[in-house]
Amino acid sequence: MQNKITAQDLWDDVIEVRSRAPLVHSITNFVVMNFNANVLLALGASPIMAHAHEEVEEMIGIAQALVLNIGTLEPVWIDSMILAKKRATEKGIPIILDPVGAGATSYRDESIVKLLAKKPPQIVRGNASEIMSVAGQPVDSKGADSTALSADAIEAAFKLARHIQGVVCVSGETDHIVNAQGKHVSLSNGHPLMTKVTGVGCSATAMIGAFAAIQPDQFRATAACMAYLGIAGEIAAQQTLEKGAGSGTFQIELLDAINLMSKEQFLSLLKMKLIA
Amino acid sequence: MQNKITAQDLWDDVIEVRSRAPLVHSITNFVVMNFNANVLLALGASPIMAHAHEEVEEMIGIAQALVLNIGTLEPVWIDSMILAKKRATEKGIPIILDPVGAGATSYRDESIVKLLAKKPPQIVRGNASEIMSVAGQPVDSKGADSTALSADAIEAAFKLARHIQGVVCVSGETDHIVNAQGKHVSLSNGHPLMTKVTGVGCSATAMIGAFAAIQPDQFRATAACMAYLGIAGEIAAQQTLEKGAGSGTFQIELLDAINLMSKEQFLSLLKMKLIA
Amino acid sequence: MQNKITAQDLWDDVIEVRSRAPLVHSITNFVVMNFNANVLLALGASPIMAHAHEEVEEMIGIAQALVLNIGTLEPVWIDSMILAKKRATEKGIPIILDPVGAGATSYRDESIVKLLAKKPPQIVRGNASEIMSVAGQPVDSKGADSTALSADAIEAAFKLARHIQGVVCVSGETDHIVNAQGKHVSLSNGHPLMTKVTGVGCSATAMIGAFAAIQPDQFRATAACMAYLGIAGEIAAQQTLEKGAGSGTFQIELLDAINLMSKEQFLSLLKMKLIA
Repeated sequence: MQNKITAQDLWDDVIEVRSRAPLVHSITNFVVMNFNANVLLALGASPIMAHAHEEVEEMIGIAQALVLNIGTLEPVWIDSMILAKKRATEKGIPIILDPVGAGATSYRDESIVKLLAKKPPQIVRGNASEIMSVAGQPVDSKGADSTALSADAIEAAFKLARHIQGVVCVSGETDHIVNAQGKHVSLSNGHPLMTKVTGVGCSATAMIGAFAAIQPDQFRATAACMAYLGIAGEIAAQQTLEKGAGSGTFQIELLDAINLMSKEQFLSLLKMKLIA
Repeated sequence: MQNKITAQDLWDDVIEVRSRAPLVHSITNFVVMNFNANVLLALGASPIMAHAHEEVEEMIGIAQALVLNIGTLEPVWIDSMILAKKRATEKGIPIILDPVGAGATSYRDESIVKLLAKKPPQIVRGNASEIMSVAGQPVDSKGADSTALSADAIEAAFKLARHIQGVVCVSGETDHIVNAQGKHVSLSNGHPLMTKVTGVGCSATAMIGAFAAIQPDQFRATAACMAYLGIAGEIAAQQTLEKGAGSGTFQIELLDAINLMSKEQFLSLLKMKLIA
Repeated sequence: MQNKITAQDLWDDVIEVRSRAPLVHSITNFVVMNFNANVLLALGASPIMAHAHEEVEEMIGIAQALVLNIGTLEPVWIDSMILAKKRATEKGIPIILDPVGAGATSYRDESIVKLLAKKPPQIVRGNASEIMSVAGQPVDSKGADSTALSADAIEAAFKLARHIQGVVCVSGETDHIVNAQGKHVSLSNGHPLMTKVTGVGCSATAMIGAFAAIQPDQFRATAACMAYLGIAGEIAAQQTLEKGAGSGTFQIELLDAINLMSKEQFLSLLKMKLIA
């Protein structure tokens, strides 16, 4: 099947996020909550974070997407994610899962199994190690860091995409996005400085929530998001390196680039390859 | 009743915060803890964050103000707030409530009722939607964002101020501060970029804690705080826009402006209107 | 006993951290999680944060050091620290304790007693008030801030070092590092702006984890870390003051300095004194 997504399509999605400001409900880890909220605001979306069992289902009522991230998981938080997922499934809003540290512990893996059970999330994003682990391919774990290249995880990504009947994104030096129907796009934007700020991967997942909220084609939504973030990373890295600055400055420049990117920057920097 | 607060009065309070460095105990949400602590330090105050039932009352013993923020509430955190509130009331230090997301879920509203029961907090700060909701006027909720203008919430603010026999601040494009005795001041400082950084509203509430700790007239303390933050927002926005930068840079510039604002900047930029 | 640590030794440790990128498992407080993770990444180390009882011991299996910080302690988090400590002791990786707010409440002090019981951590870092309190010398508490000078805490530091048969660091205007065998080094780097950003002390402790992971002489590891952070603080303060900026900018400059410090900067700025 030929993939017909164009650069202009992806940019249209960016504009749509900015103009519709979707409410993205995240149940995420303590480490990245602040940064993820700021990334969503910079993008033009609106973050909600609430996890109490007493309110999480009702809160889903005002959300346009649900993002689940297991970074600092605990049983009560996993239960909260399951309640939220059930309600989001009933309501028909997209659900995106970030299986942080998949493979690092059996509790983490069991929790991922629970979150994939019954109606699974429509989109899963992780690094190569995480996606390989979730797809049942054992890998060494280095916590939240990947020990494999994203290209090594393409087969695992397709397997997982078929399992969830949805979209899987393996992020890394090159991002690979695949779906259950065999589509495959690669994106070669981004910069190594993105691994020097905590929560950039988690923010990618949060941002996918914003794009999936406004673009029903979730393969395209994921591609638009990863392209946007990768290009923002490149712009931010260039600004940082020109100043002779480091990872602190990069974090701020990344938020600025997410906040201000122009159509010209997006279209001229995009390195997308339609593979299948 | 004529309100006689002058610009110089408000600046005197800023100097008093800087010189006395009050200890502000916050029981707040996971998203903003880091930023709120940095805002308090930038201001010259000293943050404490502790919530365990085993210590929260004892910790109040060294605090000069208590700030309660329900952003990521859970039953054990609400219980912690109630323990802290009781002890702070006994000790006679000011208590400030931020009813984040009021109206979004019934659990949130029930929790606010609990926190307002018996001896209510002396100061409540929220956006228009939140204040209208707390005052019993139903509004659409968009989570932590307001769906109403601050001017629409003035009546609700007066109603709530009489209910708590204290001070209510509705923040927004214009901030309105009212009290139970009918005083009303409006402040037209600030900048839209303040809505692009998570936790600026929560930080306003945390900062009110610092001002209320050193200024017994809590209407004046609230006005001084909101004026200071609004002017800091304007200074930060000007710096950010001059650099052609975005919401990431603004966050840093806001901390810098809170940290460094001069008397001259404060007095020349203040846009205060004594309404009643 | 003559202490023979040289400036070059300490710099060698910096290079070793950068090249080996140790995995540092932190069970820390909500306020500083994000900043501490970014500090570790800037340094070249790799952060892990996980606390669920269901996985914390297994996660220790991939870690090279364990950092325990009681800033926002709760019983379940203390239990998590005890599980992690037991497993880290069995595995033989260094354990570093940050007794945040020691002396402020009896629950805090009881928790510290628990964490020091049986096999105590090999390294404890705190400000003067905290170290004096942990060593059994009553002091006034101002929460996370010290009410004493670091020089006042040297005797307490030696006492605590003998008790844990390890290394104690009192940080402040001058940092004092001592061990059970009577070694004592002082470091006079750093800048007052370091007290205007929340979590700089906590980050020192997290960074000690990275140095202790690669340098078996834990006295030297602690000295290398505190020297590095103090010098980074000086570089960052100079950059901040040159720009006429404040505590927001300083936070970013600090991350940049940690990320980019050169050997020349380190060797030329180091102010170390071998006292015993």
